[in-house]
Amino acid sequence: MDEFSIIDKYFKRNSFIGDDAAIISPISGNDLVISTDCMQEGVHFLKDDEPHALGHKLMAVNLSDMAAMGANPKYVTLTLGLPTADDDWLREFADGLFSLANKYDVQLIGGDISRALHISLSLQIIGYVAKGMALGRRGANLGDDIYISGSLGEAAFFLAGKLKNEKKITPNRLEYPEPRIALGRSLAGIANCMIDVSDGLLQDLQHILDLNRVGAELDSNFIPYSAELKKLPLKSKLDYALTGGEDYELLFIAPNSRARIIEKISRDLDIPLTKIGSIVAGKNVIIRGMKKIPKIASRGFKHFI
Amino acid sequence: MDEFSIIDKYFKRNSFIGDDAAIISPISGNDLVISTDCMQEGVHFLKDDEPHALGHKLMAVNLSDMAAMGANPKYVTLTLGLPTADDDWLREFADGLFSLANKYDVQLIGGDISRALHISLSLQIIGYVAKGMALGRRGANLGDDIYISGSLGEAAFFLAGKLKNEKKITPNRLEYPEPRIALGRSLAGIANCMIDVSDGLLQDLQHILDLNRVGAELDSNFIPYSAELKKLPLKSKLDYALTGGEDYELLFIAPNSRARIIEKISRDLDIPLTKIGSIVAGKNVIIRGMKKIPKIASRGFKHFI
Repeated sequence: MDEFSIIDKYFKRNSFIGDDAAIISPISGNDLVISTDCMQEGVHFLKDDEPHALGHKLMAVNLSDMAAMGANPKYVTLTLGLPTADDDWLREFADGLFSLANKYDVQLIGGDISRALHISLSLQIIGYVAKGMALGRRGANLGDDIYISGSLGEAAFFLAGKLKNEKKITPNRLEYPEPRIALGRSLAGIANCMIDVSDGLLQDLQHILDLNRVGAELDSNFIPYSAELKKLPLKSKLDYALTGGEDYELLFIAPNSRARIIEKISRDLDIPLTKIGSIVAGKNVIIRGMKKIPKIASRGFKHFI
Repeated sequence: MDEFSIIDKYFKRNSFIGDDAAIISPISGNDLVISTDCMQEGVHFLKDDEPHALGHKLMAVNLSDMAAMGANPKYVTLTLGLPTADDDWLREFADGLFSLANKYDVQLIGGDISRALHISLSLQIIGYVAKGMALGRRGANLGDDIYISGSLGEAAFFLAGKLKNEKKITPNRLEYPEPRIALGRSLAGIANCMIDVSDGLLQDLQHILDLNRVGAELDSNFIPYSAELKKLPLKSKLDYALTGGEDYELLFIAPNSRARIIEKISRDLDIPLTKIGSIVAGKNVIIRGMKKIPKIASRGFKHFI
């Protein structure tokens, strides 16, 4: 099976691949938002992990970047490096990828599939946002509220179980994260800045603090823990919820004056939006109700140590 | 060294990386042209290959896709999978990548760098073309002329030498291909269809023939051989030139009425544009002056056998 047969067989479902490149006509009055995320065998996943889950997650982590910008995802390109062209693997991977893509009306418009020594997955995503309305990481001011969507810690909790070979529960948010697309779009024009929590809340929040030269004070009583964490001791709960990452919730900053509209968005979308703290002077995170903050070295996921 | 340090140190030269995604404002009256190409260790290159050449080639093969569409390349995103974060490797790779990017005023606007078991390189590229003017692979009509730019066979000749551990000559077109950007843009509106020769002339031409349900008759006397091939016997020359690939010349189809403007483009850009045959009825390639055509199985580069 050569590259062209693989494309014909598995990757032409909602796509218009054919020329050297895809052609799109931008929608006037909109900016384009572009990002990319890859997943590597032996680092982000193991060789024998379910290909359906890998396809879902590759699409989900890229969609989540669009959500974090308040953008409407529209197109993706895919590069796949594979040791062999295994029909079952390809079918299930494409199923996982396209089922999530179709849910958000995202089209695969190009790609490159090649043999490789290990599995290497890379997706690049393009979305639209009304001109000037994309949400970046700048705009956090003293006194602003810090919010998190949904709940935290489930992905890290399942990862810990997986590493200890405990029985898996499928689907879980480690393998099947759900990007917060509708929420992201609703918060464009409401939040001042936003980021998706992929590396752990403390690490991702720190990016915003560094860029805006401010600090943050969080209250450990207000962290929305995932159901799995509720019976754990506080220290352990906080560790999963604040440093675990991979939940793909949205962390955003907004002035107090937006509290009521944020409550309304939460009700309309049926997604909890919890105020977990405030922007303060300084440059670090302080956690009320906790004497020691996890060391930065143990926070989140560092790719190179 | 973590991902963020690597980005700061090596990949912020002409880029504006920072948020979850980059924001661009499309130029009105233009279409966007998008494609992606990856290079995998052990398949497209070897672990010890010069990182500067890898950076150049990764950029070049993606730029070549823009050339083939008649587009003006503008933005790229990069995903890198690396076993270790080696400073020398990263500096040289980035040098190779950016020196070619800067030549064509292409900006790196996003990326994802991660640890991986083997080196995996993937670039995604976005360019502009005046609305409706992108050159695809459709539009070859009976009697049309078939042209090739520059000369063929050098990359394959050097690859054969490299595989036999013969003394390398650097730079050569295998490692330092030069994308035909100016030519591609000049041919938008002149050629009917175009493709870049990455997999070998016969295989790439066949894509156009299949899509347009036509055949082609080439004349072996008119093939523009690279200087290195000139002393070889005809069979060997033709094999390098027609099945070798990786020269990244542009293959294009145009009606006879465009012959004079194509001559003018060739003179203006100082790039040979050679008529090597015609579109005929049928579905395959016939080569005048050659009894046997290389079997399809031995043509070009098949990623999965």
